[in-house]
Amino acid sequence: MKKIDVTEAIFASKHAQGLTWEAIADAVGMSDVWTTSACLGMNSCPEDVAEKLVSFLNLPEGAKSVLMEYPTKTWQETIPQDPLIYRLYEIVGVYGPTLKEVIQEKFGDGIMSAIDFSMKVEKEENPKGDRVILTLNGKFLPYASW
Amino acid sequence: MKKIDVTEAIFASKHAQGLTWEAIADAVGMSDVWTTSACLGMNSCPEDVAEKLVSFLNLPEGAKSVLMEYPTKTWQETIPQDPLIYRLYEIVGVYGPTLKEVIQEKFGDGIMSAIDFSMKVEKEENPKGDRVILTLNGKFLPYASW
Amino acid sequence: MKKIDVTEAIFASKHAQGLTWEAIADAVGMSDVWTTSACLGMNSCPEDVAEKLVSFLNLPEGAKSVLMEYPTKTWQETIPQDPLIYRLYEIVGVYGPTLKEVIQEKFGDGIMSAIDFSMKVEKEENPKGDRVILTLNGKFLPYASW
Amino acid sequence: MKKIDVTEAIFASKHAQGLTWEAIADAVGMSDVWTTSACLGMNSCPEDVAEKLVSFLNLPEGAKSVLMEYPTKTWQETIPQDPLIYRLYEIVGVYGPTLKEVIQEKFGDGIMSAIDFSMKVEKEENPKGDRVILTLNGKFLPYASW
Amino acid sequence: MKKIDVTEAIFASKHAQGLTWEAIADAVGMSDVWTTSACLGMNSCPEDVAEKLVSFLNLPEGAKSVLMEYPTKTWQETIPQDPLIYRLYEIVGVYGPTLKEVIQEKFGDGIMSAIDFSMKVEKEENPKGDRVILTLNGKFLPYASW
Amino acid sequence: MKKIDVTEAIFASKHAQGLTWEAIADAVGMSDVWTTSACLGMNSCPEDVAEKLVSFLNLPEGAKSVLMEYPTKTWQETIPQDPLIYRLYEIVGVYGPTLKEVIQEKFGDGIMSAIDFSMKVEKEENPKGDRVILTLNGKFLPYASW
Amino acid sequence: MKKIDVTEAIFASKHAQGLTWEAIADAVGMSDVWTTSACLGMNSCPEDVAEKLVSFLNLPEGAKSVLMEYPTKTWQETIPQDPLIYRLYEIVGVYGPTLKEVIQEKFGDGIMSAIDFSMKVEKEENPKGDRVILTLNGKFLPYASW
Amino acid sequence: MKKIDVTEAIFASKHAQGLTWEAIADAVGMSDVWTTSACLGMNSCPEDVAEKLVSFLNLPEGAKSVLMEYPTKTWQETIPQDPLIYRLYEIVGVYGPTLKEVIQEKFGDGIMSAIDFSMKVEKEENPKGDRVILTLNGKFLPYASW
Amino acid sequence: MKKIDVTEAIFASKHAQGLTWEAIADAVGMSDVWTTSACLGMNSCPEDVAEKLVSFLNLPEGAKSVLMEYPTKTWQETIPQDPLIYRLYEIVGVYGPTLKEVIQEKFGDGIMSAIDFSMKVEKEENPKGDRVILTLNGKFLPYASW
Amino acid sequence: MKKIDVTEAIFASKHAQGLTWEAIADAVGMSDVWTTSACLGMNSCPEDVAEKLVSFLNLPEGAKSVLMEYPTKTWQETIPQDPLIYRLYEIVGVYGPTLKEVIQEKFGDGIMSAIDFSMKVEKEENPKGDRVILTLNGKFLPYASW
Repeated sequence: MKKIDVTEAIFASKHAQGLTWEAIADAVGMSDVWTTSACLGMNSCPEDVAEKLVSFLNLPEGAKSVLMEYPTKTWQETIPQDPLIYRLYEIVGVYGPTLKEVIQEKFGDGIMSAIDFSMKVEKEENPKGDRVILTLNGKFLPYASW
Repeated sequence: MKKIDVTEAIFASKHAQGLTWEAIADAVGMSDVWTTSACLGMNSCPEDVAEKLVSFLNLPEGAKSVLMEYPTKTWQETIPQDPLIYRLYEIVGVYGPTLKEVIQEKFGDGIMSAIDFSMKVEKEENPKGDRVILTLNGKFLPYASW
Repeated sequence: MKKIDVTEAIFASKHAQGLTWEAIADAVGMSDVWTTSACLGMNSCPEDVAEKLVSFLNLPEGAKSVLMEYPTKTWQETIPQDPLIYRLYEIVGVYGPTLKEVIQEKFGDGIMSAIDFSMKVEKEENPKGDRVILTLNGKFLPYASW
Repeated sequence: MKKIDVTEAIFASKHAQGLTWEAIADAVGMSDVWTTSACLGMNSCPEDVAEKLVSFLNLPEGAKSVLMEYPTKTWQETIPQDPLIYRLYEIVGVYGPTLKEVIQEKFGDGIMSAIDFSMKVEKEENPKGDRVILTLNGKFLPYASW
Repeated sequence: MKKIDVTEAIFASKHAQGLTWEAIADAVGMSDVWTTSACLGMNSCPEDVAEKLVSFLNLPEGAKSVLMEYPTKTWQETIPQDPLIYRLYEIVGVYGPTLKEVIQEKFGDGIMSAIDFSMKVEKEENPKGDRVILTLNGKFLPYASW
Repeated sequence: MKKIDVTEAIFASKHAQGLTWEAIADAVGMSDVWTTSACLGMNSCPEDVAEKLVSFLNLPEGAKSVLMEYPTKTWQETIPQDPLIYRLYEIVGVYGPTLKEVIQEKFGDGIMSAIDFSMKVEKEENPKGDRVILTLNGKFLPYASW
Repeated sequence: MKKIDVTEAIFASKHAQGLTWEAIADAVGMSDVWTTSACLGMNSCPEDVAEKLVSFLNLPEGAKSVLMEYPTKTWQETIPQDPLIYRLYEIVGVYGPTLKEVIQEKFGDGIMSAIDFSMKVEKEENPKGDRVILTLNGKFLPYASW
Repeated sequence: MKKIDVTEAIFASKHAQGLTWEAIADAVGMSDVWTTSACLGMNSCPEDVAEKLVSFLNLPEGAKSVLMEYPTKTWQETIPQDPLIYRLYEIVGVYGPTLKEVIQEKFGDGIMSAIDFSMKVEKEENPKGDRVILTLNGKFLPYASW
Repeated sequence: MKKIDVTEAIFASKHAQGLTWEAIADAVGMSDVWTTSACLGMNSCPEDVAEKLVSFLNLPEGAKSVLMEYPTKTWQETIPQDPLIYRLYEIVGVYGPTLKEVIQEKFGDGIMSAIDFSMKVEKEENPKGDRVILTLNGKFLPYASW
Repeated sequence: MKKIDVTEAIFASKHAQGLTWEAIADAVGMSDVWTTSACLGMNSCPEDVAEKLVSFLNLPEGAKSVLMEYPTKTWQETIPQDPLIYRLYEIVGVYGPTLKEVIQEKFGDGIMSAIDFSMKVEKEENPKGDRVILTLNGKFLPYASW
């Protein structure tokens, strides 16, 4: 069994039981973004989370250890095509140098970690059209000199 | 005069006067992210903002109309290389399908606009290392069917 | 069952019954372009449309929920090769900057949405050779400043 | 003098006189899309149009013959980056196979010409947000067999 | 059954019966280049040709309608690798701008159609080494202005 | 002086004197395709041809030896963009495997040389639209075995 | 049966009998480089060589005609990755323009054929480390002018 | 002064004096391939060779130390385009896996060095057409295990 | 059986027995980096190591000879995506020219071999966060001149 | 003045005074790898280091603040070509997955930082050929879960 097999089992179970990612996240006591990411095979689960996922979703034997494996994180399209994902890529392209200016002005020479990192998605209701609020939270890492 | 020339004039003035992007943003009454982006030539200024920028930074004649021009938004590297910007690209790669799942679960079939959109950068002080809080705020656009 | 399986079932049924896309579109009460797109797996169907499609084309059980799934929109060739599709790509290449000039002159700084969007194909009979009339209709989205 | 030099002279004159593409098009008796395209160096002008352009915009000597030259049509980005142009590319990617199905159902095996071709941009006022109406009109060319 | 399956059936039949493309072309009353192309799945057959192909090559049921389908024309290598095909690509690279100069001098601003198009291969015997004579015949299409 | 400088001098002289490639070719006693190619810097001239070119076009001193230099043949776009040249690329893509089948059936395992090679462009008048006749003539080279 | 199947049968037989490429080459009376290339499916065998290969390696029925087929020569990596092959690519990159200078100085304007071509690998024993001697032997082809 | 400037000075001097690479190589006591490579800036000269080059070609002051600099070896086209160089690339593509088989059969697991390496070009006269004999001589390097 | 099959058998055995790479390396008397690399199919095993691996991991018959085969070393992503591997790529990009300066200053014109090469990974405990110490050890190879 | 100008001034001064990177590093009290990197414009200098560099190398006015600027780190070739740098890329390709296995076995799920990172180059004298010892030292960053 590989990560992709467990992901398919999770989708099947989620669909059969009419669950949302939010419900699954609540059941395992983690956020919806991280839980979804682990279910898609892009993060490894701590043992207790893996156990809860297997139990809540009734996953096949062997799923627990696969969920705990450290994933190789890759993606197919170096330039994303799905419009939802492409818009994020476009934001990185259009605003990348701007963010470098603003972050380094506030923090000094360094980067925002993508490892010591979390993210959340919120919905802001708005009569002109609801808004997606996406918050990235990463540790600032200053460049070493030696 | 082109956008790039105005950007260079802005950097020269900012450096000579020891200004920050935040100070420039305050002077023109806009956010630091948007102001920086306009100064880097990636957004067009409304007339009053262009006037304030020219006046505050003492930019050369002709800068005002250039700041008001609608930019052609392009970037050199389809996969960014600077580590600060690459980390954002990596987040899009690693978490793109996760965000698609979570956003579309909350909002339905559609996308987060990158046009009706704003962004902010905040600093969260933390004894283990300060954290960058990056907030994206975009209108949800549902797909049409016809 | 995945989108691709439903698409193949639709082609089989369409071929067996000698149907046109236009006839299928009429049966479900939508346009031929949108209906074809949904049948090719590039748009999600509202529930009533999915039901009509399943019923009209006698699709297998399970097809309804698959038709309602939100698709991940991707394409194989970043530069299309089939001559019919390549010509559209070529038009974007040759006339892209022209359209940017003309649209932004008429509307201001912003874009034509590809999400709040519809399209139609018409045939104009002409003794020198019939003509394809392709009409794109997208909401204008002005850039935010903040 | 090359096409690019004439384009720059046109932009300078247009800016100095506060002209629109529409006004220039009216002056030379052609559509705004085609006129803009010729001014950007992507189409060659018939002699009378070249003369009117030179005269109306007061272009330098030599511009007339350059406007009449047959351009080499190229573009820099094989995948466009500017959001307005990218959205058109995305439409070709998402709807390309759909358009192939629908056009070939209506016309038979062949393509829409990008050479015997015209295009127009219209503005549809709409209380929910104005809409861009983009109409492509190309001769249908059936594939030969021999 | 798809185009690729019919192509494999054609190769099997051609090999079993020791046929040449020329013999197959003669049997269906078309040229060898076009017939080969249709057998490789890159052109659609008119009904009578499809019938003759099925009958002459004893193809399986269902092949006729597949031969009549309008193909999606794609190729795997954007830069061909097989030396015979690469040499043609190299000729396009080396002589492309030359052909543009010469064709447009003789015909005006426009292109040679690849749709209203035919091609033939002939062998010229020569004591220093036989020569391949490859003739392309395409309708000239002048650019529209509007 | 480099090939590109001589090419520019040739264009200037050709334009000033209102010459065609055909006239230049006649003056030097070579074909129009080859002559144009040499003028664009993609073939080296034999000494007598270089002398005639320099004399007929009144080229600057030093041009003769530059015309005789062996060029490095390169092109900018691995996939051509100008529609006239792209159509040739498309023909190689669509018909490449077909030509391999047909040529190798007539000649055996080998290729058509792109070095021991000539090409011509002819105009066939036709009431439905004139046709471009492009003839490639290359020596067949059989693969060695050893 | 395809070329790849025959190649696998050859590897299996070679391995089972503990043969070297040199022994196989000797058995069929050809060089080891060419024989290996034909066994890997990159050259077509004359009939007598195909017969000897089938007999010596005890290949399955049908292998003979497959070995005689004219291969489509392709490779997966446009920039090779295996270090042994990459070093050859690097030599072409580093020394390509040098070889162009030296070969064209000795032979005139033209190329070394890769079709009328042979190659051999020899081992030169050397106390500081044995050396690979790789000899390429190709017919010089002068460019035509016409 | 950079490598490229010295290369241009060498070409100018070579042309003015009507020298061949062979004559330059003889004057500095090195092979023609290596000497040409050093003159093109792709190898660094030992001090005595640099002195002889400067003296023989009458190069400007400062050239000696530039010739001795260690070059950064790069090339523009990852797939070469000039036909002479492309043929070498094609040989690496077509015969790369063959050479891996043959070299590793003779030498064991390892590679032919491209650093401890030399190369020569010879002309073999032949009534059917002269032949280019290109000999690569590289140290065999076995893979370490540890 | 191919390298990939043996790798999968090794992973299955390693997982079933709860082994680490370090334990496997100790059992075969080689380093953990090299042993892991051989198990992933990127290095060939000497016979005695292959025997120990087969015996220690209880691999299927035939694995020994496969482990001894000389691998074709390739990787899927020319720019790695997994963050752990990408960081190494980034280091090569950011520090490549720096390492060239420093290594060539210490050693002269040449390279660090990637063939006569070893590598080790060590863990340095550190209260601020443990550190990875990665040591590369390669023979210096000076460029030949000839 | 930009980073590239300061780098050129540093090279000029280093060359004129016959300095090594090691001597420059000693003068500013930093390591040779980091110092070289800062001089090549790939790291920002703390103020005191910038002052020492300017003073030791007698750099022009304005260099100090440029050395202190936070660089945008980019590189030209996504696959390096210079053999010294390519070998490092090859090591990442060949050993990347191996290093992921070994590092994550020793440290858990996470990465080696390329930001909180240092590197050194040492020379190991060896009668069979000196060896380059390259040591990378990066903080281990465990993936967050949230």
